[in-house]
Amino acid sequence: MKLSEMQTPALILDKTRMEANIQHLKDKIGTETVLLRPHLKTCKSIEVAQHLSVKKDIPITVSTLAEAEYFLQGGFTDILYAVSIVPQKLPRVKALQKKGANITLLLDNLETAINVARIGKELETTFPCLIEIDCDGKRAGLKAEDAGLIALAQCLHEKTGSSLAGVMTHAGGSYYCKSITEIQAMAEQERTCIVRAASRIRGNDLPCPIVSMGSTPTVTFAENFEGVTEVRAGVYVFQDMMMEALGVCTTSDIAISVLATIISHKKDQNRILVDAGGFALSSDPGKKNDLGNTHFGKVCSEDACAPYKNLWIDSTNQEHGLISLDHSNLSFDNFPIGSRIRILPNHACMTAGAYDGYHVLDGGDTIATYWERCNRW
Amino acid sequence: MKLSEMQTPALILDKTRMEANIQHLKDKIGTETVLLRPHLKTCKSIEVAQHLSVKKDIPITVSTLAEAEYFLQGGFTDILYAVSIVPQKLPRVKALQKKGANITLLLDNLETAINVARIGKELETTFPCLIEIDCDGKRAGLKAEDAGLIALAQCLHEKTGSSLAGVMTHAGGSYYCKSITEIQAMAEQERTCIVRAASRIRGNDLPCPIVSMGSTPTVTFAENFEGVTEVRAGVYVFQDMMMEALGVCTTSDIAISVLATIISHKKDQNRILVDAGGFALSSDPGKKNDLGNTHFGKVCSEDACAPYKNLWIDSTNQEHGLISLDHSNLSFDNFPIGSRIRILPNHACMTAGAYDGYHVLDGGDTIATYWERCNRW
Repeated sequence: MKLSEMQTPALILDKTRMEANIQHLKDKIGTETVLLRPHLKTCKSIEVAQHLSVKKDIPITVSTLAEAEYFLQGGFTDILYAVSIVPQKLPRVKALQKKGANITLLLDNLETAINVARIGKELETTFPCLIEIDCDGKRAGLKAEDAGLIALAQCLHEKTGSSLAGVMTHAGGSYYCKSITEIQAMAEQERTCIVRAASRIRGNDLPCPIVSMGSTPTVTFAENFEGVTEVRAGVYVFQDMMMEALGVCTTSDIAISVLATIISHKKDQNRILVDAGGFALSSDPGKKNDLGNTHFGKVCSEDACAPYKNLWIDSTNQEHGLISLDHSNLSFDNFPIGSRIRILPNHACMTAGAYDGYHVLDGGDTIATYWERCNRW
Repeated sequence: MKLSEMQTPALILDKTRMEANIQHLKDKIGTETVLLRPHLKTCKSIEVAQHLSVKKDIPITVSTLAEAEYFLQGGFTDILYAVSIVPQKLPRVKALQKKGANITLLLDNLETAINVARIGKELETTFPCLIEIDCDGKRAGLKAEDAGLIALAQCLHEKTGSSLAGVMTHAGGSYYCKSITEIQAMAEQERTCIVRAASRIRGNDLPCPIVSMGSTPTVTFAENFEGVTEVRAGVYVFQDMMMEALGVCTTSDIAISVLATIISHKKDQNRILVDAGGFALSSDPGKKNDLGNTHFGKVCSEDACAPYKNLWIDSTNQEHGLISLDHSNLSFDNFPIGSRIRILPNHACMTAGAYDGYHVLDGGDTIATYWERCNRW
């Protein structure tokens, strides 16, 4: 089917751009001794995952057990479930192990560790666990210097039912950086923090095989991975307007877009309306645009997905996107009703989550194939 | 299954609360001569729709053609598709007509009207259309006094392939009101605007059978529906924190909630983390809370879904929700890791959109049934 024949709104994936993004980070990591464990919470697609490497069954990161179950069916067995585990989810983890998954869990407190070990023993298995370390105060985890870190590591190591797989951190703070220099400093903060936690654990004669850090910004710009065994990144595969605002990519790198149709001209307000609203784009406001305004995506041409200067989705209703022409040199004549645009998302993970799959453009203007996503939990 | 056995995050629907919300608006509308045409973009569920009235096949409003197709299969034939139509979508509309739908479309410009009529003629059908009227500058539509209104009405009425079904407006501005008095004034503004448009059309010897207005706030508080033939409301069925902030409901009316598990205690920051983040709750920031802060849902007890004072989802990552204890008299002891909460959504439409269906509580603590939703387009 031609792009121009698609019903809207629709999620379009530009395979050429995606492959270039994948290669870009591969080139960076290829010069390092560190392993890349891609985070598949962004793509949630076996077909995308199969494009990440020529190797099959590469190590992966997931954010839900539904993803773990889905990617295991797709042949990916080395899975890090990178959200704090709770006891109630362990029977599903055990079922994954029975089906061949080498799944690693995440936690940050002794109480959960004791429960994980107890249930592991009851279920006649061992749950390998990473300890989450907090490098920037943005999410969960113990500080690298936390007095309880060693007792937690010891518990995981010594108890039947659990094992100590290592330590992990995520520099969510990188999303708030104002320059590449700040991202580089954040990457170094992330690295020193996780290496320090690993060092403390090893200093107590405990194993710490995995030392994991990562976010797309910090992995892209880090100057040093010394002491780190693996890095995680997710959104780099698609990129988005958030990454563009951070300087991680340019708009021409962004591989997913929402195809939308002009449905109304609001001439008294100098704005056009499209059939992509909060449902089709997500309500994630991302970073402010060049005019200092919140927006919900960058407006681009239908064919080349090239950005129009000063055109954004300024606001949304459930099924309406509103675009002001006030700061543009384009007019209603450039956007006849029934004509179409593409919209680069603020946050690729959130926008892609609104769709069951990707309509894949593989050069030219023809949809080559459809790749399903694994949503929900 | 017991509520306490559910995997999280999960979308819970309290049937008792829903039925009370439905009855509340029915009681209000029952005293009026106006017809209620519920907007099913919130629930997107045949089972919920079947609870709206003892009558079958009531008139409904939808926001996507996927909803129209789905509800037609559920036996609802009188369907208003209340988003501006574009020519490319008309073959799907024709297919709906062939299957028995009495579907009414919406548009606001002559160019689209001409195309709709042309395609209607080509497809050997007639597309009934409402003209969208703009009562508050928030979305699409012509002003009631627009010089082009009569020509548009004439075109729809006279051409083969289209018919003039009437006029419609939506007071999206009601979501910005600061008091019930302001909502009442907005309802009157909505009414006078749509009645004026109908009057102008009729004054030109053209038919205007449908005069449609509506939003949950304005329909709830309107003091006068004179000249209006039907009203639309959607979110009233579930209510949400946005409606609570507007004074349309109280928290104990809100019928949907997200069940989530405490996954981490961040003691150095006095906050707890749950496994419901941006994906499970949506990124819709709703209205500011009592402390003047943006939030992503109100934290409630697991069993009674009773709000905890000063506890909100303060921020989210994709799969994490972060709750500060700073302004609460509750402590970590009240929320052991593995224990659960329920979260009242800011915007019921957006939050429900993250799920494939509802786990329905029908009194007590047992999930009685599961009702599917029709997402996507």
